[in-house]
This record gives sequence, C-alpha cells and structure tokens, in this order.
Amino acid sequence: MLPKNVTLFEMGPRDGLQNESQTIPADAKVRFIDMLSESGLRWIEATSFVSPKAIPQLGDAVEVFGRIKKAPGVRYPVLTPNLKGYADARAAGADAIAVFSAASNEFTRRNINMTVEESLATFRQVVRAAKDDGVWVRGYVSTAFGSPFGDEVTPQSVVDVAVELMDMGCDGVSIGDTIGVGVPSQVEQLVPLLVNEIPLDRIGFHFHDTRGTALANIYAAMRLGAHIFDSSAGGLGGCPYAPGATGNIGTEDVLYLLDQTGVNTGVDIDKVRAASRYIATVLDHPLTSRTYQALEAGDKRAAAVVTA
Amino acid sequence: MLPKNVTLFEMGPRDGLQNESQTIPADAKVRFIDMLSESGLRWIEATSFVSPKAIPQLGDAVEVFGRIKKAPGVRYPVLTPNLKGYADARAAGADAIAVFSAASNEFTRRNINMTVEESLATFRQVVRAAKDDGVWVRGYVSTAFGSPFGDEVTPQSVVDVAVELMDMGCDGVSIGDTIGVGVPSQVEQLVPLLVNEIPLDRIGFHFHDTRGTALANIYAAMRLGAHIFDSSAGGLGGCPYAPGATGNIGTEDVLYLLDQTGVNTGVDIDKVRAASRYIATVLDHPLTSRTYQALEAGDKRAAAVVTA
Repeated sequence: MLPKNVTLFEMGPRDGLQNESQTIPADAKVRFIDMLSESGLRWIEATSFVSPKAIPQLGDAVEVFGRIKKAPGVRYPVLTPNLKGYADARAAGADAIAVFSAASNEFTRRNINMTVEESLATFRQVVRAAKDDGVWVRGYVSTAFGSPFGDEVTPQSVVDVAVELMDMGCDGVSIGDTIGVGVPSQVEQLVPLLVNEIPLDRIGFHFHDTRGTALANIYAAMRLGAHIFDSSAGGLGGCPYAPGATGNIGTEDVLYLLDQTGVNTGVDIDKVRAASRYIATVLDHPLTSRTYQALEAGDKRAAAVVTA
Repeated sequence: MLPKNVTLFEMGPRDGLQNESQTIPADAKVRFIDMLSESGLRWIEATSFVSPKAIPQLGDAVEVFGRIKKAPGVRYPVLTPNLKGYADARAAGADAIAVFSAASNEFTRRNINMTVEESLATFRQVVRAAKDDGVWVRGYVSTAFGSPFGDEVTPQSVVDVAVELMDMGCDGVSIGDTIGVGVPSQVEQLVPLLVNEIPLDRIGFHFHDTRGTALANIYAAMRLGAHIFDSSAGGLGGCPYAPGATGNIGTEDVLYLLDQTGVNTGVDIDKVRAASRYIATVLDHPLTSRTYQALEAGDKRAAAVVTA
C-alpha cells in the first residue's frame, strides 16, 4: 500500500547550492527560495550556518536567511554544525535547525576528524540548546547506504545513529544516501529495522541520483509506508561535467513520479520548475533533473510548433 | 521475489544510434558492437534494415552487419520494418529480426500512416516469412505507457497488440516505454495482464529514462518476475542538449542495480563501460547514463590521487 500523502523537504538552496562549484549571489538565492515558497512546498532547508572558510558557497547565510520572505505555513530549517552556528542561526531568527551526522566512521573522521560517537556528543549540545529554545530539530544520518571511503556501513549502525538522534531530542531524522550508491533491496532491508525503533512520520529519506537509482529507492520506501522525502529543485548540486558531483534527486522527478502515481504532495511542479529555471540562469551548467529537462524540452517543442 | 537471473537486450547500436542527431561512421559502429560482444551480453540489436532516406543514421546496415564479428553465444537481431528490409537483412546473413509495432494509434498513424491493425497486417507478412526461414523474431510494442501525441493507451490495448504479435509467430515481445513517461504503478497494473496471456520468459521490457523512472520501473517489473530488459550502453540515444532526445536506460545503470541487488546477468559492467567510452569519442555530446558518468568520474578522481 502506497501512502496517500507525501511531504517533501526541499534541499536545493542548502544541499544543492553547497555542492555547486560556484558561489551564487545572495540576491539570486533569496529570489530562488522565495519562488520555491510559492510552490506548495512546506519545508525548505534554506542555508547552513557554517564557517564561510569551510563552505564559501553558503557564507552569506545571515543575509540570505534574513532577506527571504517567510511564507505562512512554510518552515525554513537551517543546518547548524555546532553551537556557534546554532547561535548565529538563532540570532538570524531561525526556529528550525538540522544537524548532520553520519553512519560511516571513516566519512566522519575525514569530514570533521571525529568518531561517529564523538560527533554525536557535539550534536547533543546543539540539540539540547535547541530543545530548550523550543526550536524544531532534524537529524541527518548521512552515508547510510555506503561510504565514499569504502568502510562498511551496516543497516544496524544506521539505526543506532538514528535512534541516538531521536533520543537526544530530534523531532525527526533524515536517512541519507549521500553518495547515491543505494538500491531498493537495501531500502527494503533498512526500513523495517528503522520502523521497529522510530515512527515513520519521523523518518525522511534523502536519496541522491548518482547512479540513477533514486526514484527506485523512493518507490521501494513508499511501498513500505515511508512518506517523507528530500529532493532538490532541478537536481541542483549535480553537475554533468564535474567528476563525482552528485545531486539530490530532482524535486521535479519526485513530483512527476508522485503525481503520476496519484500520491498527493500539495506541490505544484510548474512552480518548482519556474524556480529551477530561474536558478539555472545564474548557474554555469545545465540542471540535471531528468524531468526538468524533459519538461523544458517539451515546452521548447511546443513553442517551435506555435512559431512554425 | 526477485528473479535470480536477468537477460539484457542491448539497444545501443540500433535504438541508441538511431536517435543520435549525428551519423556515426560504420567503422566506429563495428568496433562498438565488437566491444559489446566481449562483455557477456548475449543479445545485441545490431542495426535496422530501413531506407537510408528514412533513417540516415543506420543507412549502413548492410556494411555494419556484414563486418561485425559474430561472437559465439551472442545473437544480433536487426530491425526489419517491411518485406524489403527483411530480404536485405536475410541477404546480409541475419538470423534474428525484430518488428516495431505500437499500442498508440496516433503514433502509428503519424509514424507510418497506418492504423495499429493495418501495421500488424504488414508485420504479419514479415513474421510469416521469417518463421518459414527459421529466423528468430521479436515484436516491439512501443508507446505502451503513453503516446507522444496524447491519445490514450490502455493496458488492454498493449496486451492486445502483444498477443497478436505472439499469435502471428513472434518468439518474444518487448513492451516499450518509448517516450519515458511510465511509472511503477503502471508496470504493476500491466505486468499481471500480460502474464495472463504470455509467459514471462517471452516478455521483455524496454524503458527510457526521460523522467528518471526507468530503474524504478525495472525494479517494479522484477518484483513481479520479469527478467528480460532492454538497455543502451552509456544511455546512448539520449542527449543532454537536444530538446526531448530521450535515451534508453543505460546498460551500466541496469547492471549497477542488478549487481548490487545480487541478480545475475553474466555481463561485465566494465567491458560495457569500455564500449561506451569508445563510442563517446565519436559522439558530439557526453553520454547520459548516470552510472557511466559516476564510474568515469570515480576513475578520474582515483587517477588524480595517484598523480597528486
């Protein structure tokens, strides 16, 4: 049985732009997010309060978060890697945050020079501060389907990290296939283990389409009742030219699948597409979402017929 | 229950190259097919015996088919749209052919100015001649998940055409999502209807990845026991720049999914990738297979580390 309704978490402004090689002007980010806010999306991860030295692409978090129009009914979580980022996010007015953990020890070591356990201790401080302030918190479990460094990631290790995040006070978790290696059989193994510990309305899934498997994974998860998915407008963050640049699954791709399957999202694909089309004008490469490409091509053909 | 073994029909040399805007030299096609023959693929659709005026990309069918090395255990079907094409194919030594029908009336009318019924009468002559000669025959049912012209294609009309193709003597059918609009729920509706009439070991599925749904559709079909799939090395036939150019799902993408799922194909992904890498050198655009791109990018990163 498929779910009747699915909630999408829009990743384009944060996970998407963070993984673009160029830095987009704040004006363009604000306009992009404001366009997404009109599409029916209810969750838009807006930016990351990180050191501009670490991630220059999102070094304008304070400005961008301050300038976007906060639409009624839409929430704008921001990534906060530590207490400094959390304080900055709060000063900017954020009332929803996310912390980014991982299931892979090697990924965590190379990324922030900690073990997974040490990283969770850091996040515990941030989550505790957020809960004290009444702030909504999401916990990412990245590299949940495989590590870029080849160390084994077991389903149980994913469950363990997810449970620790929930136990420390997260309102929900997002299980991420950060490098896009997952296949549906892994999803079918992992989801029941997660559901033993955490209710499905607290578990999002975050698939990248690096090897074309993202929609297959989403459909497999939906068959098991999952109904929260992360996606990125236009497939932002994936670049067809950059070696290994791997985008989130495109929001348009997920919406096409769900619309055709009769699953309700409340999101207007054409409005998302308009936002993607806008951000494409400031990018140095074409967007990679298959459905975005197909819809844009269809419009061009229709226009050619009209003008012929 | 997933099947233990899957058979792939390689479409790159025919469906792939037919949909490229440029015409590839015969030398390159021969080398490409010969490389594919070494990969473990057992079915490689080699070319189409059509009028060079209709499809100049495959106007060298006689030369290409004559020059490729016919590897032991590999079969090389060729598309034959009519008796003239069939005679040419036989003269060139073909012992396996395919006919290309459609479920959409409007597509058939615009494509060959016939109704679906009239087109099947034409194919009946070809299939009869082939069976008299002991030639193996595959029947395509294209536009099975939707028509580019918006006319409705019902699952029953797909079954009806498939059954007529089998009744006239085809050894198998291939159910094609020619424009890449299908979603898994359609697959789940169609497969049981087909299986009521035709054994699953005679039914292939041919998905295009225009909207990113191909692997989701393949996985949905496999869950229902389907174990014959069409794919195209590198995603050949899809072009990231040409409006609406829509490739078959990449052979590498299917192999990645199946290898990771533990389903046996007997095909070496690295040998397919080598063939794709070769044909990419004579193409005017990058190949679109997600997995091909990811694997090539991984190799570049590894090489960068070695040389750093």
